[in-house]
Amino acid sequence: MYIPTIEDMLAAEGRIKPYVHRTPVLTSQFINELSGAELFFKCENLQKAGAFKARGASNAVFGLNDEQAAKGVATHSSGNHGTCLSYAAGRRGIPCTVVMPHTAPQAKKDAVRGYGGHVVECEPSTTSREAVFAEVVAETGAEFVHPYNDPRVIAGQGTCSKELYEQVKKLDAVIAPIGGGGMVSGTCLTLSNLAPSVEIYAAEPEQADDAYRSFKAGHIIADDAPVTVADGLKVPLKDLTWHFVSNHVTDILTATEDEIVDAMKLIWKRMKIVMEPSSAVPLATILKNRDVFAGKRVGVIITGGNVDLDKLPWMNS
Amino acid sequence: MYIPTIEDMLAAEGRIKPYVHRTPVLTSQFINELSGAELFFKCENLQKAGAFKARGASNAVFGLNDEQAAKGVATHSSGNHGTCLSYAAGRRGIPCTVVMPHTAPQAKKDAVRGYGGHVVECEPSTTSREAVFAEVVAETGAEFVHPYNDPRVIAGQGTCSKELYEQVKKLDAVIAPIGGGGMVSGTCLTLSNLAPSVEIYAAEPEQADDAYRSFKAGHIIADDAPVTVADGLKVPLKDLTWHFVSNHVTDILTATEDEIVDAMKLIWKRMKIVMEPSSAVPLATILKNRDVFAGKRVGVIITGGNVDLDKLPWMNS
Repeated sequence: MYIPTIEDMLAAEGRIKPYVHRTPVLTSQFINELSGAELFFKCENLQKAGAFKARGASNAVFGLNDEQAAKGVATHSSGNHGTCLSYAAGRRGIPCTVVMPHTAPQAKKDAVRGYGGHVVECEPSTTSREAVFAEVVAETGAEFVHPYNDPRVIAGQGTCSKELYEQVKKLDAVIAPIGGGGMVSGTCLTLSNLAPSVEIYAAEPEQADDAYRSFKAGHIIADDAPVTVADGLKVPLKDLTWHFVSNHVTDILTATEDEIVDAMKLIWKRMKIVMEPSSAVPLATILKNRDVFAGKRVGVIITGGNVDLDKLPWMNS
Repeated sequence: MYIPTIEDMLAAEGRIKPYVHRTPVLTSQFINELSGAELFFKCENLQKAGAFKARGASNAVFGLNDEQAAKGVATHSSGNHGTCLSYAAGRRGIPCTVVMPHTAPQAKKDAVRGYGGHVVECEPSTTSREAVFAEVVAETGAEFVHPYNDPRVIAGQGTCSKELYEQVKKLDAVIAPIGGGGMVSGTCLTLSNLAPSVEIYAAEPEQADDAYRSFKAGHIIADDAPVTVADGLKVPLKDLTWHFVSNHVTDILTATEDEIVDAMKLIWKRMKIVMEPSSAVPLATILKNRDVFAGKRVGVIITGGNVDLDKLPWMNS
C-alpha cells in the first residue's frame, strides 16, 4: 500500500491547477453567533462539476502517461466521483467509462454523459457491478480510478485544505464530512504536514456511522446498506483512508437526519448557496457540540452541490 | 434634484467598506456555451443581508451626522431595502423603522426585526402607508431613506460595478435587473465615468415592463400593480433613476415569467447559488437575445438571494 506524501499533494496542486477552481471561503455572522465559533466555509460546491472530487479525479487523469491515457479511465460510482472523473477525462480528451446500476437516478447518468463520459449499466448488486466493471477494464484497458482508496485521489483532495490554509489564517480546526474518507484523508495529509496543530474532525450521519464506530473500535467496520439523506456518505472506509483517519483525526461526530436537514436549510437560507445534504453534516455536528468548537476558528468543508432541485429534503417533510 | 457624482460613489466606497462584502464573481462554462457569451456573475446574493441594497443603505446610514443619526432612519419597503436599512442601522447602533403593510410576509417582518429594526404596520394602500410613514417621521425625526430615488443610495449601489470593473478585465457590457432603477443607476454612475465604452443593459419582466415602456416613450410610465414572480421589480422609476436610465442605458430587454423561472433554476443548478427570481431576469434576457451578447464579455449582476425556500417557483408548476 503506497501512502501519498506531502510532495504528492504539492505535485497534484500544480498538475490540476488549470482544471479546478480555487473556491471561495464564505462566512456568516448569523451562523457564527448561533454556533459560538468562527466558521469559514470552503465552498467546494462551487468547484468544477459541483464537487471537491474534481480535484482527485483531475490529479489521477492528468498524472497518467500518454500510453495509459489513450486507453482511458474507468470507475464504478453513481455519485460525484463518476461525474468528476468524466469531467477530468473530458478535459484531457480521453475516454471515461462509469459503471452504475440501471436503477441509478437519470440525473446522475446525464451528468456523466454531459461531460462526455460513457455509462455502462449493471444490476444493483456488488456481484454484478464487479463483473461488469472487470469486463469494461478487460475490453478497454482503462485505468481504474477508485473514488477514494487511491493515493492519487487522496493527494488531489488534499489540495482543498492547502487552499483553505492559505485563505484563512490561524485555523484551530477543520471539519469535513466522512463517507469513504477521501476528503478527510486529503485534509489529514496536508494539515498534518503544513499545520500539525490544527485539529481535524470528521462528521458523519448517525444512520451511517461506520467511520465513527471504526474510529472507536480501532479497526474498520462496514455498515450494511445504511439509509441516510446524506447519500454521499454511505460508503465504508478502506485501508488507505483508514490509515489517515486512524492516525490524524481528532474525533468523529455524528448528527441525526433532522439535524442534517435543518443545517442544510440554514446554510441555504443564510449563506445563499446550494449544497448537498452530505455537506451539511459538519455544521449539524458543530451546532450540537458547541463545547467542542466554542471560540475556535474552524474551517468547514462544503463538499458538493449536486442536488435534485425538484426533490429537496424539506419538500417531503 | 441633486445628481450623485463619481466622487460621491468613491466616498461611498470608503465609507461602507467595513460593513459590506466584496462579493465574488462566479462563472459557468456550461452557461457560457449555452449563451455564446462570456458571463461574469457578480454575486450580490452573497452580500450582507442577502442583497446589494446593503450598499446604498450603509452609505446613507454612515453618511449621517451624529445628531441626525441619533434620531434614526426610516423607510417604507417590504423588500430587501427595509432589511438592509435595518442591517446598516444595526451596525451603527441607531434606530430604524420600516413601515410595511400588515399583509407583508412574516419572513420579511422577521428579517427587519432580526437586525434590530422596528416594524410599523399599515393598511395595504398607498394612502395608509403615506399617513403612517408621516406619523413615524413626525414622532421620531428619523431620516427618510428612499429605496432607490436617493443620491446616497445610488452612490452606494454604484460601488458594486466599481468592484466588478476591478475584478473582471475588459468587460464589453453589464446587465442588471431593473425595478425602481437603483442598481442600474449606480451602474450607470460608475461605468459612464470609469469605463464609458461598456454598454449597460437593464432586464425587466415582460409583466412589469414599465421601465421598458418608459425607455421607448422617453418619459416615465408607471405600471398599475404589476404581477410577476420577480417581486423585487414591481416598483416604477423615479426622477433620479430616470435621469441615469435615460442618459446611459443602451437598451432594456424583457423576459416572460417562464423564461425567468427557467433561468433561475438553471443558475441554481449549474452555479450552486441561491438567488431571487428578480436576479434571474438578466440571464433570461441574455438567453433570448443571443445576437446582442454573442462573443461579448458580460457582467451580470445577481442582485439578491432572499427567497422563501418553502415556496420556490418551480414547486408550484
